[in-house]
Amino acid sequence: MSTQREDETVREVTGRRVQVGIVGGTGYTGVELLRLLAAHPHAELRAITSRKEAGMLVAEMFPSLRGRVDLAFSDPANAALTECDVVFFATPHGVAMEAAPILVEAGVRLIDLAADFRLQDQAEFERWYKLPHACPALLAEAVYGLPEVNREAIRSARIIGLPGCYPTSVQLGLKPLLAAGLVDPAHLIADCKSGVSGAGRKAEVGILFSEASDSLKAYGVGGHRHHPEIVQGLRRLANGPVGLVFTPHLTPMIRGIHATLYARITAEADFQKLFEDHYRGEPFVDVMPAGSMPDTRSVRGANTCRIAVHRPQGGDTLTVLSVIDNLVKGAAGQAVQNMNLMFGLPETAGLTQIALLP
Amino acid sequence: MSTQREDETVREVTGRRVQVGIVGGTGYTGVELLRLLAAHPHAELRAITSRKEAGMLVAEMFPSLRGRVDLAFSDPANAALTECDVVFFATPHGVAMEAAPILVEAGVRLIDLAADFRLQDQAEFERWYKLPHACPALLAEAVYGLPEVNREAIRSARIIGLPGCYPTSVQLGLKPLLAAGLVDPAHLIADCKSGVSGAGRKAEVGILFSEASDSLKAYGVGGHRHHPEIVQGLRRLANGPVGLVFTPHLTPMIRGIHATLYARITAEADFQKLFEDHYRGEPFVDVMPAGSMPDTRSVRGANTCRIAVHRPQGGDTLTVLSVIDNLVKGAAGQAVQNMNLMFGLPETAGLTQIALLP
Amino acid sequence: MSTQREDETVREVTGRRVQVGIVGGTGYTGVELLRLLAAHPHAELRAITSRKEAGMLVAEMFPSLRGRVDLAFSDPANAALTECDVVFFATPHGVAMEAAPILVEAGVRLIDLAADFRLQDQAEFERWYKLPHACPALLAEAVYGLPEVNREAIRSARIIGLPGCYPTSVQLGLKPLLAAGLVDPAHLIADCKSGVSGAGRKAEVGILFSEASDSLKAYGVGGHRHHPEIVQGLRRLANGPVGLVFTPHLTPMIRGIHATLYARITAEADFQKLFEDHYRGEPFVDVMPAGSMPDTRSVRGANTCRIAVHRPQGGDTLTVLSVIDNLVKGAAGQAVQNMNLMFGLPETAGLTQIALLP
Amino acid sequence: MSTQREDETVREVTGRRVQVGIVGGTGYTGVELLRLLAAHPHAELRAITSRKEAGMLVAEMFPSLRGRVDLAFSDPANAALTECDVVFFATPHGVAMEAAPILVEAGVRLIDLAADFRLQDQAEFERWYKLPHACPALLAEAVYGLPEVNREAIRSARIIGLPGCYPTSVQLGLKPLLAAGLVDPAHLIADCKSGVSGAGRKAEVGILFSEASDSLKAYGVGGHRHHPEIVQGLRRLANGPVGLVFTPHLTPMIRGIHATLYARITAEADFQKLFEDHYRGEPFVDVMPAGSMPDTRSVRGANTCRIAVHRPQGGDTLTVLSVIDNLVKGAAGQAVQNMNLMFGLPETAGLTQIALLP
Repeated sequence: MSTQREDETVREVTGRRVQVGIVGGTGYTGVELLRLLAAHPHAELRAITSRKEAGMLVAEMFPSLRGRVDLAFSDPANAALTECDVVFFATPHGVAMEAAPILVEAGVRLIDLAADFRLQDQAEFERWYKLPHACPALLAEAVYGLPEVNREAIRSARIIGLPGCYPTSVQLGLKPLLAAGLVDPAHLIADCKSGVSGAGRKAEVGILFSEASDSLKAYGVGGHRHHPEIVQGLRRLANGPVGLVFTPHLTPMIRGIHATLYARITAEADFQKLFEDHYRGEPFVDVMPAGSMPDTRSVRGANTCRIAVHRPQGGDTLTVLSVIDNLVKGAAGQAVQNMNLMFGLPETAGLTQIALLP
Repeated sequence: MSTQREDETVREVTGRRVQVGIVGGTGYTGVELLRLLAAHPHAELRAITSRKEAGMLVAEMFPSLRGRVDLAFSDPANAALTECDVVFFATPHGVAMEAAPILVEAGVRLIDLAADFRLQDQAEFERWYKLPHACPALLAEAVYGLPEVNREAIRSARIIGLPGCYPTSVQLGLKPLLAAGLVDPAHLIADCKSGVSGAGRKAEVGILFSEASDSLKAYGVGGHRHHPEIVQGLRRLANGPVGLVFTPHLTPMIRGIHATLYARITAEADFQKLFEDHYRGEPFVDVMPAGSMPDTRSVRGANTCRIAVHRPQGGDTLTVLSVIDNLVKGAAGQAVQNMNLMFGLPETAGLTQIALLP
Repeated sequence: MSTQREDETVREVTGRRVQVGIVGGTGYTGVELLRLLAAHPHAELRAITSRKEAGMLVAEMFPSLRGRVDLAFSDPANAALTECDVVFFATPHGVAMEAAPILVEAGVRLIDLAADFRLQDQAEFERWYKLPHACPALLAEAVYGLPEVNREAIRSARIIGLPGCYPTSVQLGLKPLLAAGLVDPAHLIADCKSGVSGAGRKAEVGILFSEASDSLKAYGVGGHRHHPEIVQGLRRLANGPVGLVFTPHLTPMIRGIHATLYARITAEADFQKLFEDHYRGEPFVDVMPAGSMPDTRSVRGANTCRIAVHRPQGGDTLTVLSVIDNLVKGAAGQAVQNMNLMFGLPETAGLTQIALLP
Repeated sequence: MSTQREDETVREVTGRRVQVGIVGGTGYTGVELLRLLAAHPHAELRAITSRKEAGMLVAEMFPSLRGRVDLAFSDPANAALTECDVVFFATPHGVAMEAAPILVEAGVRLIDLAADFRLQDQAEFERWYKLPHACPALLAEAVYGLPEVNREAIRSARIIGLPGCYPTSVQLGLKPLLAAGLVDPAHLIADCKSGVSGAGRKAEVGILFSEASDSLKAYGVGGHRHHPEIVQGLRRLANGPVGLVFTPHLTPMIRGIHATLYARITAEADFQKLFEDHYRGEPFVDVMPAGSMPDTRSVRGANTCRIAVHRPQGGDTLTVLSVIDNLVKGAAGQAVQNMNLMFGLPETAGLTQIALLP
């Protein structure tokens, strides 16, 4: 992990702050975008939309933003989104693809935090999300916004399909191994544990405090929408077909994903060194020293993925531990990282928060 | 899971309550034994020892027991343990084996909730616990107290080495598969998540509220004392060598273990039916309907192991979910279940608590 | 607190188990009633209704009840509630009063866990609950189900208005002082902290895990429906008007209420002795030794109210600490306690669970 | 609350960064100081001492600081503290006063986060902390570091006794009322709820996760060290004697203090306006709109105190709600705020973090 500071060699693309719009600012990825962008040195919040809350001050819904965000939610219909440089969609699936053609036409760049532009295979998108895709042509040009894989493509992209939280943690954890061809790609296991905020800010019984606290369970074992997305990403990394068992678990913490990844070794290597070399220079991937076991709180509120690689009992299976904050590197932080790349800003601009510990 | 009620056909061995002693009553397994035994219809608490707290009323340390347990902690040296029918050791490793010879000599039966009598290979015990074993002869006769495996041997045992919490959840989850020889025993994975009470009631920084809450981490990835115990048990079930990757995780809940188990299929079967048939009649193992994903709170405070078996995407790997309360089926409850078997009591006596939900 | 055991001198009123119906079994007070009644030695569950879930097995919704409750939810319209001896209403406000006339007519006794029969002043009910009362005559005869105040009236009541959770903790904490006339009744303060389950099992954003955990806030400071109920009860205890400031707080625990009560001393007394004498013989009120500070977990899952009385710095203000489990002594447990009294059962029958600690 | 940005009109006192030392960097206030100072635009960390961990990289103990803090703990004996401009003591009581004379002599300014310089009455200090004071002369000149009360004195102070966390929340909540003489100073009540991090990073059983989570209790009801400190502060605000009942509670959250304050009205006023006028322009005190009930998470990680004032039922008692993050405005953040004042930096420099929500 490099320690580049945001105040060095800032290239402001246009001599002015990037003008930013957010569609759907009332969920957790929305308020996290606000937290990051309100303190971003090169961005300016122009519009935050919410059909339901139009007219309400953002800081009334989220008192943590009092004195820092003066905007009110505006109706999407009236919001001057086409005057923004970039619009983030922190909405449910299906919203961004409806709005994308008009915005792209207007020269606005678009970062979708939902799934509309993640799966490049249109049929697969439609199978998992039960929706016809609204703009297949734009889907074809959209870039999957994982900077550690697609940094150059992101710089010039007009549309970003931002990776899901689980896919980010799993792909970053397995990338060095698959890229080097050292493990069996047909039998990968991703046992993932997520904090409850990953389920969003929705009124559902299953994620009530009294249901989800002091307990733990698996879910989506038979099929989770992140499965095809992860497979798509791993396939690209492995340059061939992969087999993956993916088990997400709901755990009693607010933020955090802990991916425990299992891969069968097919060729020997110094795996610690492999990971360190692979991620040298990456500003937001931290390969921990040999023997480390990262806890999710070590990235709480930070745009960092911390990774440790283990070979238990010197056997034939590697255990990779990969932790992120699902709302930061798994969503809003990664979105800002993409924006920075797209506008020629320092990649770490506005993303230098240190994790809140304890 | 049968629904046998404790009030049916009680055979009281001697016409009187079983006289019970507890050595080390100040930890979590100790207070849980007290909760269960204070309400047990056929047991009577005679002595609870604690060198450090001798003289203090038990209910002063644990106000939850006010009005229910009148005993004070007594010094082990003075406690009339030899007058008990059975003594539970809820102590750190190394204590039970020192006391065992005298108690066994006096005709007292012994249930050790620590590890002194779990590993039947003396050398392995000494390697993992860094202690010479104090009574190898008794180790040789000790019975591993997992009723679903050793029910008959437990009935007549003089010494029980009670399974650890992780080993209970993992062995029960894999037993039907290994016994039937349907999976590859050389490549088993147990990804386990534990509540913090599993670490005991010890003044250690790592398990402080401010360290362990709202966070999650793996630990002991390179080697955990439960690994050889699980392997020993699985080997017996598989009737041959096994290979196991075991990853324990510390999660922010008080009680509960969730074992997520992965096994490669080597022969086809109706796995749901296999599990249901295998555990039919077991009073404390509940095979959930196909598609279920048990949460740990569904067994909070209860002596139940709930299991679900999945075959994601119809692939070649099974995912078994197995949950227990680490302090009940993983410790004190299983200990009482052993006691019931040893004294000819109904196996469910004193163990019919319904899980506390929410 | 007496230690009467449920197996002593059981008078079974009719030689058979009390036949029990539950209306609204899908909330937290409902499932808690099921936990208690499924293990009650003198009660038999006959019907559990839920309009929305009719036909679903109760144990499918609440896996903790698998093997213990075989009933399915039935439609209220078809449920044979009139054949029950007693029907518990674990419903939102307004349901019990609609059903009461028919049930009472049929000789069924009724215990309402909601608010329909708590406020004896009909106008006050209608002001706070925005509903005309459906059966004022029955309201007039209903008994407020706080056994420590109304034990004799409860025995013969046809309708019980069960106290709310906050009102139980506050009234039990202040009763000895008001009854003895030793404090200023015009300036009482009840600063109460509740677990989240007190808000019910409703899909609301404010009680999501990600909203309510790792945080704390006051609510209802300007007016809470329990305020008039508490005042009504305190007025009876003080035998005159009272003034009360009541501040409820939402705290990140599942169960538990901690009432911190402040009262100005108007006459000197040995307050510790006063409390001990006052509650001597009460099976479910535990006056702690001088200097104690009860934690809510000491009553988790138990039908106990633990109380401690302090006089900080020997000043003119008493601080009373009163803890209950809001779902047990604050709801379902107290409901069963009422049922026991109504049917001549031992008051502690089915209520001898020891708190789950840790 | 003003929204002054740290990048405006920065006066760097000496043209260089303030050189900072921290004594005792291994506790929660220590790591929080590191989080804040590592990102402070005008401060430079020079030395962090820990006798026990000398030689260990700070980031090894706190992985959240990897890539951001390169220092290792140094032995206090060898640390070049006298070369610093300011030294923070994040130590147990009794350490700062031993070191103060030498540091002050060397021209180093000193901010003590413990209690050595809080109580201006030496006898009172010695009574509560059971220690003779090591430097009464320096105690006499020390300034109590609550900027909203002592801003000007802080600027020129050589030694700061930083307020405790409870005292900060209580004094800020009552200040407008006492200063205006509108409430009875003889009968104030402070019912305070704290997160567990307030108890420090010490290996103690009572603050283990399994003890403190899912539960709540009062403590120190008979006498808490913050009581004389709060009284000292309130007395100054009231300009006369005060009577205070103070009840701290331990609640299951990591960070946060919620003070619920009760005061009897003695003269009428527009209390909402009083608070708003009183704190207008204060950068870190946010008076919420009438009717608000702040939650502690709205200040999690931020140096803000949010306050709401209520008059329940229009009665004669005011209820003031005051929330802070105990580690920020209650400790490390307030310490940095003092440092900023002492060195002529913008008061908000390095303190513009937005609260982490959810």
